Amino acid sequence: MYIGVDLGGTSVKVGLVDNNKLVEMRTSETGRDKSPHDLVADIVRLSKEVMDEYNIDEGYVGSIGIGCPGLVHPKQGIIIKTSNFDFENFHIKNEIKKSLDLDVYVENDANVAALGEATVGAAKGKSSAVVVTIGTGVGGGIVIDGKIFSGAFAGAGEVGHQIIKFDDHMTCGCGRAGCWEQYASATALINQAKAVASHKMIEIAGGYDNIEAKTVFDAADQGDEVAWQVLNKYFDYLAIGLTNLINIIQPEVIVLGGGISAQKDKLVAPVVERVQAQMYGGLKLETSIVAATLGNSAGIIGAALVGPSKKSI
Amino acid sequence: MYIGVDLGGTSVKVGLVDNNKLVEMRTSETGRDKSPHDLVADIVRLSKEVMDEYNIDEGYVGSIGIGCPGLVHPKQGIIIKTSNFDFENFHIKNEIKKSLDLDVYVENDANVAALGEATVGAAKGKSSAVVVTIGTGVGGGIVIDGKIFSGAFAGAGEVGHQIIKFDDHMTCGCGRAGCWEQYASATALINQAKAVASHKMIEIAGGYDNIEAKTVFDAADQGDEVAWQVLNKYFDYLAIGLTNLINIIQPEVIVLGGGISAQKDKLVAPVVERVQAQMYGGLKLETSIVAATLGNSAGIIGAALVGPSKKSI
Repeated sequence: MYIGVDLGGTSVKVGLVDNNKLVEMRTSETGRDKSPHDLVADIVRLSKEVMDEYNIDEGYVGSIGIGCPGLVHPKQGIIIKTSNFDFENFHIKNEIKKSLDLDVYVENDANVAALGEATVGAAKGKSSAVVVTIGTGVGGGIVIDGKIFSGAFAGAGEVGHQIIKFDDHMTCGCGRAGCWEQYASATALINQAKAVASHKMIEIAGGYDNIEAKTVFDAADQGDEVAWQVLNKYFDYLAIGLTNLINIIQPEVIVLGGGISAQKDKLVAPVVERVQAQMYGGLKLETSIVAATLGNSAGIIGAALVGPSKKSI
Repeated sequence: MYIGVDLGGTSVKVGLVDNNKLVEMRTSETGRDKSPHDLVADIVRLSKEVMDEYNIDEGYVGSIGIGCPGLVHPKQGIIIKTSNFDFENFHIKNEIKKSLDLDVYVENDANVAALGEATVGAAKGKSSAVVVTIGTGVGGGIVIDGKIFSGAFAGAGEVGHQIIKFDDHMTCGCGRAGCWEQYASATALINQAKAVASHKMIEIAGGYDNIEAKTVFDAADQGDEVAWQVLNKYFDYLAIGLTNLINIIQPEVIVLGGGISAQKDKLVAPVVERVQAQMYGGLKLETSIVAATLGNSAGIIGAALVGPSKKSI
């Protein structure tokens, strides 16, 4: 039994994971105004609550894992820098250990979500997986042989920050321009749709400003030609970066996550077709491309699994 | 003691590697007209020659490793397809075992060169390395914890085939357009130089048609402004793909190989400066970027090391 923590910019979710399943969960609000010590107090309180609810104490829990946004130092257990909170270089591991008698693991949130999908979700049983999370940006996590591959300095998996169009005007938050994220994120799809918004899209969304990624899929479903054009171009963009990843890493499976993955085969099928068309020398696409299955639980379950994944070395 | 074989389109090189050093070597010509059985006969003959020369027999040799161009199946020991020879799906491992009483390992040539650099060359002692070989194309090999990472289907490391400019006119041999290889290979540099060839470049090369990658560096050394402009743009192209690789894999070290790596710091320093400028959010570049040190021996030494690298699992 393990505790997983999904620390986000608006909420912290703490869950108890038993036999790879989320059996208890508690949530608390976070925010930029929260001090790191308040956050730790919340994590400790919620952890005790889920253990109480399940009628166990720390002796029955293997470890606690925390998925944190931004740049973390897993070995030292430090949140180095994140755009969600104002603090820097916070030793979250040490602080939590003061109040909980548990091994504490700290990892990047995209990496733990990838570990969740790779261990019990869409990539279960696969030797290697890249999980591409399509949301505000395009995040990623690499899992090889059941363990997070975070690179030599805990910064690997930033798959959204591969330039797919240099000399581009699409400047990126990372400081470069022409990154995949500028074309393939849900934000990008929304912008692409808004640029040519059809009456149908605006009607479905209940107003131009309300257009979201799902709107485009729904409008296309209803036969809106403009929505189809937007989607077809968007699938092209997705396929470019995915093919790049396959040429570089060639994982056994690529998992598409984020809210847009709820579109399942409406997203996956056209993307697979395009990636196949771009395979080296016309070879067969061997990497599977699938939609995520854990949804919002990926972060908590994956965080809980960090400890056991390290112990299985 | 191990035997390494570097099987190329124009020659096959067979070397005896003792204590990570190349101690004997024999070479024979290859070519498209060679049958696979002739190639195997050459490899067997040269292997026996280097053992004889060193006064040992198969009992003293741990294994033989073969670095092959194109697509190989390491587990089955098959050369699936290569642009250098006409045959396909050749069971080179089985054929060699008929004549040599040795464990036989078959790997892609870029991967074995990477293993060589990672084990005894420029990336010695590093936890993870990406070796980028700049030549006719841009090849690559990934080594993690002393072992080749060849992906789930033996096709990883094709780092030259990441699109860095989509909707591009630069079509690539892989079937896509705008691949990094079209901008960052030695061939690309030569084309970039020829497009604006200065009097100085032509003079150094002894004629327009003779301009090669080294010509551009030599002309720049002699103060040729055109050569500098070409190089500065070329370094930009190199840095784009290298930064992409760091954002995705973040290895401890990237080794730049191929003939152009003989330029050492004239190549490495300007590239490092550009990659640093592109680091995520202005963070410090932590991955080292260095020039290869094994030169043409990387393939033989790396091939010899495939066997021991697998046994150390």
